[in-house]
Amino acid sequence: MVAATQSLQELCINSIRFLAIDAVEKANSGHPGLPMGAAPMAFVLWDRYMRYNPKNPTWLNRDRFVLSAGHGCMLQYALLHLTGYDSVPIEEIKQFRQWGSKTPGHPENHETPGIEVTTGPLGQGIANAVGLALAEAHLAAKFNKPDCKIVDHYTYAILGDGCNMEGISGEACSLAGHWGLGKLIALYDDNHISIDGSTDLAFTEDVGKRFEAYGWHVQHVEQGNDDLDAISKAIEAAKAVTDRPSLIKVTTIIGFGSPNKANSHDVHGSALGADEVKATRENLGWEYPEFEVPADALKHFRKAVERGAAYEQEWNELFAQYKSKYPEDAALLERMKSGKLPDGWEKALPTYTPEDKKNATRNHSGIVLNALAGVLPELIGGSADLAPSNKTLLKSSGDFQKDAYENRNLRFGVREHGMGAICNGIALHGSGLIPYGATFLVFTDYMRNAIRLSALSEAGVIWVMTHDSIALGEDGPTHQPVEHVASLRAIPNLAVFRPADGNETSGAYKVAVENRHSPTLLALSRQGLPNLTGSSIEGTEKGAYVLSDDGGTPDLILMGTGSETQLCVDAAVELRKEGKKVRVVSMPCWELFEAQDEAYKESVLPKAVKKRVSVEAGTTFGWSRYVGDEGVSIGVDRFGASAPLGALLEKFGFTVDNVVAKAKAVLA
Amino acid sequence: MVAATQSLQELCINSIRFLAIDAVEKANSGHPGLPMGAAPMAFVLWDRYMRYNPKNPTWLNRDRFVLSAGHGCMLQYALLHLTGYDSVPIEEIKQFRQWGSKTPGHPENHETPGIEVTTGPLGQGIANAVGLALAEAHLAAKFNKPDCKIVDHYTYAILGDGCNMEGISGEACSLAGHWGLGKLIALYDDNHISIDGSTDLAFTEDVGKRFEAYGWHVQHVEQGNDDLDAISKAIEAAKAVTDRPSLIKVTTIIGFGSPNKANSHDVHGSALGADEVKATRENLGWEYPEFEVPADALKHFRKAVERGAAYEQEWNELFAQYKSKYPEDAALLERMKSGKLPDGWEKALPTYTPEDKKNATRNHSGIVLNALAGVLPELIGGSADLAPSNKTLLKSSGDFQKDAYENRNLRFGVREHGMGAICNGIALHGSGLIPYGATFLVFTDYMRNAIRLSALSEAGVIWVMTHDSIALGEDGPTHQPVEHVASLRAIPNLAVFRPADGNETSGAYKVAVENRHSPTLLALSRQGLPNLTGSSIEGTEKGAYVLSDDGGTPDLILMGTGSETQLCVDAAVELRKEGKKVRVVSMPCWELFEAQDEAYKESVLPKAVKKRVSVEAGTTFGWSRYVGDEGVSIGVDRFGASAPLGALLEKFGFTVDNVVAKAKAVLA
Repeated sequence: MVAATQSLQELCINSIRFLAIDAVEKANSGHPGLPMGAAPMAFVLWDRYMRYNPKNPTWLNRDRFVLSAGHGCMLQYALLHLTGYDSVPIEEIKQFRQWGSKTPGHPENHETPGIEVTTGPLGQGIANAVGLALAEAHLAAKFNKPDCKIVDHYTYAILGDGCNMEGISGEACSLAGHWGLGKLIALYDDNHISIDGSTDLAFTEDVGKRFEAYGWHVQHVEQGNDDLDAISKAIEAAKAVTDRPSLIKVTTIIGFGSPNKANSHDVHGSALGADEVKATRENLGWEYPEFEVPADALKHFRKAVERGAAYEQEWNELFAQYKSKYPEDAALLERMKSGKLPDGWEKALPTYTPEDKKNATRNHSGIVLNALAGVLPELIGGSADLAPSNKTLLKSSGDFQKDAYENRNLRFGVREHGMGAICNGIALHGSGLIPYGATFLVFTDYMRNAIRLSALSEAGVIWVMTHDSIALGEDGPTHQPVEHVASLRAIPNLAVFRPADGNETSGAYKVAVENRHSPTLLALSRQGLPNLTGSSIEGTEKGAYVLSDDGGTPDLILMGTGSETQLCVDAAVELRKEGKKVRVVSMPCWELFEAQDEAYKESVLPKAVKKRVSVEAGTTFGWSRYVGDEGVSIGVDRFGASAPLGALLEKFGFTVDNVVAKAKAVLA
Repeated sequence: MVAATQSLQELCINSIRFLAIDAVEKANSGHPGLPMGAAPMAFVLWDRYMRYNPKNPTWLNRDRFVLSAGHGCMLQYALLHLTGYDSVPIEEIKQFRQWGSKTPGHPENHETPGIEVTTGPLGQGIANAVGLALAEAHLAAKFNKPDCKIVDHYTYAILGDGCNMEGISGEACSLAGHWGLGKLIALYDDNHISIDGSTDLAFTEDVGKRFEAYGWHVQHVEQGNDDLDAISKAIEAAKAVTDRPSLIKVTTIIGFGSPNKANSHDVHGSALGADEVKATRENLGWEYPEFEVPADALKHFRKAVERGAAYEQEWNELFAQYKSKYPEDAALLERMKSGKLPDGWEKALPTYTPEDKKNATRNHSGIVLNALAGVLPELIGGSADLAPSNKTLLKSSGDFQKDAYENRNLRFGVREHGMGAICNGIALHGSGLIPYGATFLVFTDYMRNAIRLSALSEAGVIWVMTHDSIALGEDGPTHQPVEHVASLRAIPNLAVFRPADGNETSGAYKVAVENRHSPTLLALSRQGLPNLTGSSIEGTEKGAYVLSDDGGTPDLILMGTGSETQLCVDAAVELRKEGKKVRVVSMPCWELFEAQDEAYKESVLPKAVKKRVSVEAGTTFGWSRYVGDEGVSIGVDRFGASAPLGALLEKFGFTVDNVVAKAKAVLA
């Protein structure tokens, strides 16, 4: 039954609107305004243009869709439900924002098949979309043949005013323009309303002109509420422009259809309320009870299932051809897609003995990355304009640039936050790429939400953070991380490594590469460090391990990470001269150590040994857990200072003498 | 002596260059490239336009100068030295980047009089400059009279490619354009080089067009290395445009004068090396030994002292007139400038009894802010588009907007990082303004470097962070802070409060307002909380205090913060029923508690009492310090989930029953 007054298209669009309205109303929580206003553009996109297979959300060549304005997630859940994704049956719509549902308050890719990336924190999604488009461009350049375009899809995003106000979107979109990512098409839901009220309050810039300055193709659909043809034409024009990303500004009314709340911030983040839901039903001529989708609309939407199966089938046939013509490439793509690492890849990891020369762990990292580049063609990444300092350039590859998408060195410019979200997008493209992003450790502050989202959304990104303590020297306190290692350890689902030498750097990378569904962060030294006796990849994989011991129950445990582990080793030598039984424990990764069984933990840090000293050139915050009631921590509980390395280590107490003195005080 | 081949201007400009070259060479560390390229624009600005008094760096009406590209700090130190600031004698130039010097590796306002803000992390400085210009605009609107413009100065900034790549600069500059801050003039050192190499690698957008999109007046000086008149004309044109901020793109050659390293990234961040220093001297016809400034150049520069004294004298006379005509305004401005708070201001802080109704601490915060607005005219601030949620609107004021600079409600839009740096700029304007900035606690991630810099640079900002735990409910894990309170506690010099009720919120604000040289962060609940028996402003000021006790040595200490303190109170009631002697300790601010003397700390948390339980709806990271070897912490060591408040508290164990159970286990 099609209501006499509604075309099939209107029926479909209103189906989206009322699923959103009803779900938010039932939860008495959520954001109805965006779905109500953006339903027309979303309908046109999902119905006429996007290629996806609801029955196989992980089909490699699907178009990617990102709702950067993640608070409008009911738009996305409605689309997933209507087009036939198994992850979102009507029961899940009814469970919107409830414990254990597949329809949480913002879209989460790890919870809901069909959701590509986790959004909500504004601006992240559009930056993820740049990463998805980058991944497509890279894989296309890498795998496609003149007669066989095996990777060929679009990345679409809907973003809002909030996304466009955030700096991260500017960073990522400037890069997208620089890279000329022509298959990235972003629809800007220009509804003029944010939480504080009209965008006149704080957002009066010319967004279109700004995107033109970034090198984007920019269009404007003035009647985004009803001019579906204009939306269609704009999408077609955007697809026709292949050398630049496209922004389509679609002017809409937030909460379209609500007679008393549309075009106001009241409709942004709260349920409409029973009266207004009723009034909206009347206003839009919607006769259906809550959560009921008219059969004609559902039937129309569900054509996506058949369409999607055909798309995938067509692609499968293409891939079969590809496989017969290019078996090696096909095998590589299949392996990457499976998430399986090549057999024996870890043999590329270098190991060291104490005779090997002193080196900074950032240099070890550079050596590892270059070694892995040879065995892991899926490795791709770069630095936020610190490649020479972060040691992240892959010598075997050129730069990923407009006419060289096959290359693996990404040049992010000074855009840490954009880099972070782009790396997340690359990881979540689901094609097996292993992205890494690098900057100075202190500038994790600029990209912290992207790091957090890599952990939350189970993105296997490798974060390469160099210059990991005051020991970076003269650049001074603005550049010296103090609280950063601790504050990163506090993030759930993130493995934070501070390796002590070459073997531990290799061990950290072994874990990082194997962590395909969680991120790993490496804190690496600027200064040279000796290769320690007893250090190993295997020990590093356990998070903490005994580096040296005198047998029996130790009098004292010295614990260190990274560049301070050597101080523990040297202090132990001194203390042993005085007859003390000393154990030295290297603790490169707390999270992994905590994941070991109790027996192992007890074997490394026996509860009975209460005399403990930790040494780490960062805040002591958090170390109480390991030094316990009778131990002490040597650290940096103030901001650093600008001075040469030697002066800093002396002034801040990172000397063997000070470790020995503190140890004796503990033993006394 | 003026070298035959050099005009006095060239001599002055080269004096800047060679102080930078020589200082970096002696330190064998630093960034010579920017000072060498930007010396001409800096000379023109400081010599012809800027109004400052080297002998009184805190003169209220001075023009402010910000080197946003802070790595080029030798430019600024050279200018301070040459123009006669006492803080930078030639000995300090020679001590560049050494322990204890006034010339650290990046500019630090708290170390070096004459430096306005701390820069180095890119983009922060230009955003600080927006804050400085905002402060000027606000004070001018507040204090100036038609016959007496007592506040009337410019804010100048030099920023580089790196600053322009960072999203934070886009956020702040979009706001500056929106606000029409016409007395903000930014010189963009367009030298085409960043650390990775040419900006062609990653930065090909049209920066000028982008700033036009923000509503800025944009000019281009093509020959920034030698066309001083063009620089002058551009500055004059910028000053003539009073309704918009100005960007002057000045195209320069990085490392100008170095025959072999100019225009390359080699000159960006390393000493030139002895040979190249020599070659540069020859190339620029510089016959002076290291650190020697030609007498004529020094004499010319030092005219700034006399000029500055005259500027200030003129202003003092104006202020004397102002004072006689407008004594109340003058008294207020003088009080504000002195940093002294009005007598009895703290009486405006509300207090509560347990009979007062339950309320969220974010609401208490809103009540306090509005109460303080009446007694503290220096209070100014707002939210990053969450005013209705953060409860930050001052009802007694309108919005700070283009034609209403006298108002105190700042509408930052969804721009947390820009907000942070703008607030820092307001605080560091040195005029006594007390800025506050607000968002959801989880989005401190977006502005963390600005929060860090408030702590490092001793800026008395109040950070108002609401929705402080999983208890925010349905918005889910993207919006639920878990690790944030811990990770903020790890930042040195930042007081982090998590108040439990109305009295503690008042106490937190008492500290925050009195902290005029360090920032304070408040983590506030979304949900309603009871007013607790025994809570007090005085207790809160000590960081932690005994809320209830049974006398004698307790069997158990229950410790809580914020919304979980009530659980400790209620659990104590249950445990006492079973004959346990229980102490309840409220710990709203760890940093303040640590600052108390040992006797007080022992009186609250006696070392002998080992049975301890902490309850906080965030990561347990860091709590070992207080619960010790035998205690346990109830917290959230995973990401949150989307569900209603009640379900979340139950599932995550924030119930009286669970606290009682854990306490019994500890006691067992």
